[in-house]
Amino acid sequence: MLTIRTPHYLDHAATTPMRQSALAAYIEAAASVGNASSLHGAGRHARRRLEEARESLAAHLGCRPSEVVFTSGGTESDNLAVLGQAAASSGDVVAVGATEHHSVLDSAAHLATPRGGGMDVRLLPVDRCGAVAPASVRGIVDEVGGRLALVAVMLGNNEIGTLSDVAGVAAAATAAGAAVHTDAVQAVGHIPVDFGALGVTSLSLSAHKFGGPLGVGALIIDRGAACLPVGFGGGQERDLRSGSVDVPGVVAMAAALDEAVRDMEAEATRLERLRDRLVAGVLAAVPDAVPNGGGPRLPGIANLTFPGCSGESLILLLDAAGIECSTGSACTAGVAEPSHVLLALGAGDAAARSSLRLSLGHTTTEDDVDAAIAALAPAAERARVAGLGLIGTGVTTS
Amino acid sequence: MLTIRTPHYLDHAATTPMRQSALAAYIEAAASVGNASSLHGAGRHARRRLEEARESLAAHLGCRPSEVVFTSGGTESDNLAVLGQAAASSGDVVAVGATEHHSVLDSAAHLATPRGGGMDVRLLPVDRCGAVAPASVRGIVDEVGGRLALVAVMLGNNEIGTLSDVAGVAAAATAAGAAVHTDAVQAVGHIPVDFGALGVTSLSLSAHKFGGPLGVGALIIDRGAACLPVGFGGGQERDLRSGSVDVPGVVAMAAALDEAVRDMEAEATRLERLRDRLVAGVLAAVPDAVPNGGGPRLPGIANLTFPGCSGESLILLLDAAGIECSTGSACTAGVAEPSHVLLALGAGDAAARSSLRLSLGHTTTEDDVDAAIAALAPAAERARVAGLGLIGTGVTTS
Repeated sequence: MLTIRTPHYLDHAATTPMRQSALAAYIEAAASVGNASSLHGAGRHARRRLEEARESLAAHLGCRPSEVVFTSGGTESDNLAVLGQAAASSGDVVAVGATEHHSVLDSAAHLATPRGGGMDVRLLPVDRCGAVAPASVRGIVDEVGGRLALVAVMLGNNEIGTLSDVAGVAAAATAAGAAVHTDAVQAVGHIPVDFGALGVTSLSLSAHKFGGPLGVGALIIDRGAACLPVGFGGGQERDLRSGSVDVPGVVAMAAALDEAVRDMEAEATRLERLRDRLVAGVLAAVPDAVPNGGGPRLPGIANLTFPGCSGESLILLLDAAGIECSTGSACTAGVAEPSHVLLALGAGDAAARSSLRLSLGHTTTEDDVDAAIAALAPAAERARVAGLGLIGTGVTTS
Repeated sequence: MLTIRTPHYLDHAATTPMRQSALAAYIEAAASVGNASSLHGAGRHARRRLEEARESLAAHLGCRPSEVVFTSGGTESDNLAVLGQAAASSGDVVAVGATEHHSVLDSAAHLATPRGGGMDVRLLPVDRCGAVAPASVRGIVDEVGGRLALVAVMLGNNEIGTLSDVAGVAAAATAAGAAVHTDAVQAVGHIPVDFGALGVTSLSLSAHKFGGPLGVGALIIDRGAACLPVGFGGGQERDLRSGSVDVPGVVAMAAALDEAVRDMEAEATRLERLRDRLVAGVLAAVPDAVPNGGGPRLPGIANLTFPGCSGESLILLLDAAGIECSTGSACTAGVAEPSHVLLALGAGDAAARSSLRLSLGHTTTEDDVDAAIAALAPAAERARVAGLGLIGTGVTTS
């Protein structure tokens, strides 16, 4: 078996290795044929596996099994929540956090177009740590009242890890009759997530962020929530999501979440220690580096700005040294744009282009962290010299 | 390992067992971590695997690698093709075959709603065999000319297997400047499919119909085709489809198609013989049964009407005898509605509720076929008696 040499993988927020328990569950489920919509024995067996997985997920997430809608991942879940609930609402104002993932931001931007319904889309500001305050939602409610269709605020940010007071946001928005979506893609499997306690109408998750397979996720959506489908076909999942359900993928996702939840408390403590060691070590080695975010946050994500260094140069230099990390969301890593998350925190364009995300996960060791610390000082030095040189020739570094 | 007892699985058109080569490819790819959008070594490795799979699929399907857009399956591909190309067109007329899968029919129905743009949606009639004639497309072109935005005609029908002259349809529609989509979900991996030779602008496929995993598919779409995305996010696949690409799933799909194409000629001959043996055997055992469809068709699908029998009763009686089949599309199997495909062929409501689809695939043996023949006569007899009894009490059988 060909296995790539991944000496120090510190990009778990992009995707984390599939857990052995999840792969074993996938293989076992894939050995049985059967479309979960078929009436015969094989179909009923597949349906049973599907419903067991649904119950297991629901138990871990504080929702009812009937509130779990299986999808192809976080992006589809966010799209369905934002587009579907906005379309079902009589309101015409949508408010989303400024640091949301593009699957939420770009869905909201679509709602503002004529094809999307020409809605009035507002960005909710974040504080210096990157958190959305319930007060800003109350401000919009005071202004537009019943016109507020939907609020979307993520639970844990994918670039800086900051947690927002989603329960407070939900209380403010639902009081005005609005739907409330939270993107919990980075949170599920890493911190306790309780759908009922949050009080949102919908919540998205993605299996490959907690050791399940790629291409599988779910939208948890309140039975009473008004939501129109955005895709059309057999209507398999509560008439909200069409397409043959990926039973082996769903079974593997449930197995991964079982393991993640079982290990959660100890693992969060372990990762926080490693993350703090990483940040402290980097600051000691590169004294002018600046940590981004702060306050309550996910255990495994560190984000730092290295003034004068191009983030992309840093990634490539670190990669050459066997350290794998990113500038921000992998979903936009191919695009040479400054991080919208850091811009929303008040960073200038240069700082937003000079940042790294180092994200830790279930396979991360102290050795990985120490290797990253050791590699960062020389990488930052070289990136800075390269940046200066390029600026000297009039060529921009991004 | 728990494996369900599936003595005689004859529902391969709903989903067919995952090939060992595909499962092995999945396991191998899942062992490497890496988001294909990440810039580091692990990301580039995942990207390489993804592009190799893309090239392999393109070579088998007569398209360029850049024309392959990976999706979560046939439904998503059909949705994107129909909704995306209609939205990108200046035309306002959409014509779809009357026997299309619900992922096409219901997308077209959405286009006719105010939210979908209020387009003028026409159903293309089918002949007694279930084929759409290019002449009916020419008729619409003559009537609406440049107003024609999109035509969608499936390559091989999922309930009766009938092949339409999609190349003829495409020639008629593209002459008027319309986009042409073909749902090739049941055809790919079973008969030769050449995107270029068909002359369509888009074509959908689904891995689990040819021995790949559930939850993975592709839309083949011409580089020059105008298509707007229907989902929003990182823009991973040509800005047409967002979400982290399921690299292990895609690699497994490519492995399955490799094997399916390699075996295609011999397998098609083998399945046609088995299908003909099945139909002849059933007609001998149940003389008033009526085969549906005809003309050029997929090798593995047989569909018969059993007058006086409820299709659902037949399924359950056959299931008890170890024969697993369906009334039609698994995607609507939970719904007690007559088959829209058989209705379009001119069948009455009663006949459309009294039909069975028996679909053969790569694991089907002569033994499976003979067992189905042996089980059908007593099952039909019992279903008929039950049906008569229920009709006698004024209760409908569906």
